[in-house]
Amino acid sequence: MHVVQEYKTYYADSLIHISPVAREAYDEIIDAIGHMVGQINNSQKHINSVTPIKEGLVSLLSENYGWTKEWHLSTVSGEVDPEERRSRRKGSGGGIDVYKEFVQGEFSFNVGLEFETGNVASVHRSLNKLSLGVDAHELDLMVLVLPVFNLSYYLTDRSANYEEIAGYFRLYNNRPFIAFGFDAEEYDPSFPVFEKGNDGNHKRV
Amino acid sequence: MHVVQEYKTYYADSLIHISPVAREAYDEIIDAIGHMVGQINNSQKHINSVTPIKEGLVSLLSENYGWTKEWHLSTVSGEVDPEERRSRRKGSGGGIDVYKEFVQGEFSFNVGLEFETGNVASVHRSLNKLSLGVDAHELDLMVLVLPVFNLSYYLTDRSANYEEIAGYFRLYNNRPFIAFGFDAEEYDPSFPVFEKGNDGNHKRV
Repeated sequence: MHVVQEYKTYYADSLIHISPVAREAYDEIIDAIGHMVGQINNSQKHINSVTPIKEGLVSLLSENYGWTKEWHLSTVSGEVDPEERRSRRKGSGGGIDVYKEFVQGEFSFNVGLEFETGNVASVHRSLNKLSLGVDAHELDLMVLVLPVFNLSYYLTDRSANYEEIAGYFRLYNNRPFIAFGFDAEEYDPSFPVFEKGNDGNHKRV
Repeated sequence: MHVVQEYKTYYADSLIHISPVAREAYDEIIDAIGHMVGQINNSQKHINSVTPIKEGLVSLLSENYGWTKEWHLSTVSGEVDPEERRSRRKGSGGGIDVYKEFVQGEFSFNVGLEFETGNVASVHRSLNKLSLGVDAHELDLMVLVLPVFNLSYYLTDRSANYEEIAGYFRLYNNRPFIAFGFDAEEYDPSFPVFEKGNDGNHKRV
């Protein structure tokens, strides 16, 4: 895959220019996106599952760059009272898809990344969750990765795309926030279909 | 019903104290909540539909106080490019559940209210939608109304409750924002069940 849409707040852009570790995080994400399988079966709409595509990116970041999967923000999970916990579904309690602590001298620079495979409402939750992490100084950079509309047309029905959430990005302008929208390299009805339960990286043709 | 949980940002609290129309809006909402049918069948969990309960509040605000249903923010709908519009489901394009323009001398004071019957992710979207309205000066006060956990236990499965979203309210601290959590007056297995398709106000026993 490759990045075709990008949103960087002024704060995030500054960080990337002044901090080598912020730049490193940025480059790792773009590189990982570039290593995702970019051949998409377009024989019919919604034919591919978005889940293995997400799992492909998470695996790349985890295995190639040492990012941690399902990292829990204490600012989100810590505040849950017992009553609230009962009301929550499993897994919605503050897990960030992937996280990495970059070290620069005596300082650590913490990056949280979400790739939401649910509908657009879930993306709002992801962005708000990352924001709580930033506000609590648990994250120094918040990143959202999403397929663009052109690609999502061939992915799980109603899975979120970059364009439908982009109008809300400005709500996060006072935070160090980057959003990436990615697209496939090639579309062909003969490419293998991404199916739920398979890691997207095993699909390389 | 009656309000048992309330979150007011400093900004919203100030407005209510200094502006008669802000106070009027605040009082109308509490009054309308107080007129919602407050007898809930508790014979089993998730037995009542939350939809007629929401419709009850929307009707009360609309019929008794002249609020407008399904009001569209131009800041949300206006920015949608054709590509994005294709990717959106009908109805998600910026409609606020109820809205009212209060007039004070030469000034208008615009209030948007959301009562989200979907899951908690949808509440994040509602809050972000209202925030766009505030940031674009289309809204002067943003209001969220939700059942508390105690009540939601007997409502539609996974419908959002006050407690599970409350940890995120601080993200809106720099905006004029109020959230109300309401509960029923009485619970009894013999009370009528709220069923989808019926207006909650017709259920009064």
